[in-house]
Amino acid sequence: MDYEAYFQGELDAVRGEGRYRIFTEIERKCGNFPHATRYVDDRTEQVTVWCSNDYLGMGQHPAVLEAMHNTLDECGAGAGGTRNISGTNHHHVLLEQELADLHGKEAALLFTSGYVSNWAGLGTLAAKIPGCVVFSDALNHASMIEGIRHSRATCRVWRHNDVAHLDELLSEYGPDVPKLVAFESVYSMDGDIGPIAEILDVCEKHGAMSYIDEVHAVGLYGPRGGGVAEREGLMDRITVIEGTLGKAFGVMGGYIAASEALCDFIRTFASGFIFTTALPPALAAGAAASIRHLKASEMERARHKERVATVRRRLDAIGIPHLPNPSHIIPVMVGDPHKCKRISDWLMDNHGIYVQPINYPTVPRGTERLRITPSPVHSDGDVDKLIHALSDIWSQCELARRSAAA
Amino acid sequence: MDYEAYFQGELDAVRGEGRYRIFTEIERKCGNFPHATRYVDDRTEQVTVWCSNDYLGMGQHPAVLEAMHNTLDECGAGAGGTRNISGTNHHHVLLEQELADLHGKEAALLFTSGYVSNWAGLGTLAAKIPGCVVFSDALNHASMIEGIRHSRATCRVWRHNDVAHLDELLSEYGPDVPKLVAFESVYSMDGDIGPIAEILDVCEKHGAMSYIDEVHAVGLYGPRGGGVAEREGLMDRITVIEGTLGKAFGVMGGYIAASEALCDFIRTFASGFIFTTALPPALAAGAAASIRHLKASEMERARHKERVATVRRRLDAIGIPHLPNPSHIIPVMVGDPHKCKRISDWLMDNHGIYVQPINYPTVPRGTERLRITPSPVHSDGDVDKLIHALSDIWSQCELARRSAAA
Ligand SMILES: Cc1ncc(COP(=O)(O)O)c(C=O)c1O
Ligand SMILES: Cc1ncc(COP(=O)(O)O)c(C=O)c1O
Repeated sequence: MDYEAYFQGELDAVRGEGRYRIFTEIERKCGNFPHATRYVDDRTEQVTVWCSNDYLGMGQHPAVLEAMHNTLDECGAGAGGTRNISGTNHHHVLLEQELADLHGKEAALLFTSGYVSNWAGLGTLAAKIPGCVVFSDALNHASMIEGIRHSRATCRVWRHNDVAHLDELLSEYGPDVPKLVAFESVYSMDGDIGPIAEILDVCEKHGAMSYIDEVHAVGLYGPRGGGVAEREGLMDRITVIEGTLGKAFGVMGGYIAASEALCDFIRTFASGFIFTTALPPALAAGAAASIRHLKASEMERARHKERVATVRRRLDAIGIPHLPNPSHIIPVMVGDPHKCKRISDWLMDNHGIYVQPINYPTVPRGTERLRITPSPVHSDGDVDKLIHALSDIWSQCELARRSAAA
Repeated sequence: MDYEAYFQGELDAVRGEGRYRIFTEIERKCGNFPHATRYVDDRTEQVTVWCSNDYLGMGQHPAVLEAMHNTLDECGAGAGGTRNISGTNHHHVLLEQELADLHGKEAALLFTSGYVSNWAGLGTLAAKIPGCVVFSDALNHASMIEGIRHSRATCRVWRHNDVAHLDELLSEYGPDVPKLVAFESVYSMDGDIGPIAEILDVCEKHGAMSYIDEVHAVGLYGPRGGGVAEREGLMDRITVIEGTLGKAFGVMGGYIAASEALCDFIRTFASGFIFTTALPPALAAGAAASIRHLKASEMERARHKERVATVRRRLDAIGIPHLPNPSHIIPVMVGDPHKCKRISDWLMDNHGIYVQPINYPTVPRGTERLRITPSPVHSDGDVDKLIHALSDIWSQCELARRSAAA
């Protein structure tokens, strides 16, 4: 077989669909984010990032940077081993305590990423517990889907946010069948929020474990940044709360928070936890500093909400349609991969505005979009420029507008 | 079902087998590694680490730390997004170029860890290429096994390092069947090295792709640290070279190096590459600095070899049996999990010497061992202390010795 020709053929097919991805190469400017330098061909140019998941700008927060600098000096670069073989640093232990406290759980367990925490966490529970059936929301993240798939457990997919459907599927299994219900709080591409309380009611009715992905909510919701479940007073009813250190907390890494026994079980049996080098101590220290800061400070969350509301209001005023939702994510729907990329390119080339076009497989085909993520560090001037640029391209391309009154 | 009771029961079973893992909590002392502070109960104490995979001490190299400090100041803490959505930093691109150059390949692709690079790399090739059959060495690392398992491709396991067996299995499939042969260079627990040239002969004979894990070899072998395949002049015959940035390079992250089309294929289709926050720019910059340094400097590798030889010679002199192998890894076999842990505890408690006991599932049951990894930063005094302590415990426990002449 000619492998190279096969790879090229598959890539050509992706190109034909207009969803071949060209990564935008930037250099974030610490202290000046959302501004960044873009590298393109042999030039550089200045851009404003409007699609980052460093939602609160914590990636440049002095407390985070100071913790990272200090820990680099004290402990060096890498952890030097897996958690079991010389890789458990004091800073990992402190961070796990910080996370357990954040979610009001007995324990927490760190992974190298949110992806790995979902894959290994769900995968291990579903594979190890004999006869476990998984009930997965239809729009769950790829990392959850792959974890469940990896487990080989029976998986029943319930219609997105449809609690009655979940109830119906759960009812098919007797009380002795172990059950694991997996869902998210904030769904990152549509920005909608799951009906957590209702889901938990149904889980409790059927004796099912509940597993929530709060990756796009931790740091952002709840009085201490514990996520939507904290805001709604539901954390103690959830079996496993999963989150990331790489989005609102501004660093990198993932975790689960749960009972002591459950965390110990995953720690002991999850291949993706055991057989990999631990996070660098400086990342653990930076993430802990970020979490500590956001537990105590409401300012970033308040300003974040205000910025999101402002961008929404300004979009409404010029009639640019965006998906309504109760979160901080503003999806401007385009519905065609070619058009979506053209708009994105035009914003970049003419206005230095960076909004990545989102296409398949990140979102379903036909729902291609610009996903705008305002943050506390976007100034009024930044917002003005974004709005004018969008208005301009909307007129040029004769894209549909909504009446301002709608 | 009582989930908590189930978890506790499983953990109790592990405890009963003597393989319940208690992580040793340390704080590496930058500039003073292999010395570290150990946190135990409410005390701290000073220990010497003899089981780190920071093989060359690059985790505290000034060039690495400087690159990380500078990049932290310039770019901030995290990447702020997946590679596709605002997370591709200039430093990722530079690092990928550095890695492609290291292995003499057209391209390289970064992952968040070596684990993820194997899981996603092998998993995607095996799953996507229609009818692909994987041929996996029996002692391949968990991350490779899980990747292959995840793909659902047919997997044929060949006896460890047995090229005739590999040839035999490959012969069962016609020339049109896509084939992927996966193996390692340095096997991390026994320290043996695969017969790479012979494996490649057989791969070429059958038109199979070759995939080598050089995780325990990159930085350490070859004139520029390109691994065993570089040392043996074989890099250009290998389809995919996989490595880590978390062991000899002292930081964190993983990668594959291969043709432009193959890397682009993985970049485009691998869930574990696409749906996760990119490595922090500071890690990428630190890893690039480490690679650059080790491309040019032979000193660390020479001193590493000398230290390994010295420890082996000293062990031989006191008759402590260790597995002979052509690598830098010194496995002192104990063969019982309880005994192995007792020896390790005793070394720690009485001599401040930290050698983690290695047990199932990291090694097969009955092959429990102490895995000693000398590094250029272990002084003669450190070696003396290790040897005296081992001699002492060997006498106390009346463990078998080999005659010094053997
Ligand atoms: C819902 C969801 N879960 C998990 C992840 C993975 O988290 P991480 O980026 O830390 O790997 C992501 C995105 O990256 C996500 O959107
Ligand atoms: C052979 C082998 N491959 C891959 C890995 C995973 O690399 P990483 O630690 O970067 O995840 C390891 C150990 O951790 C390993 O021993």
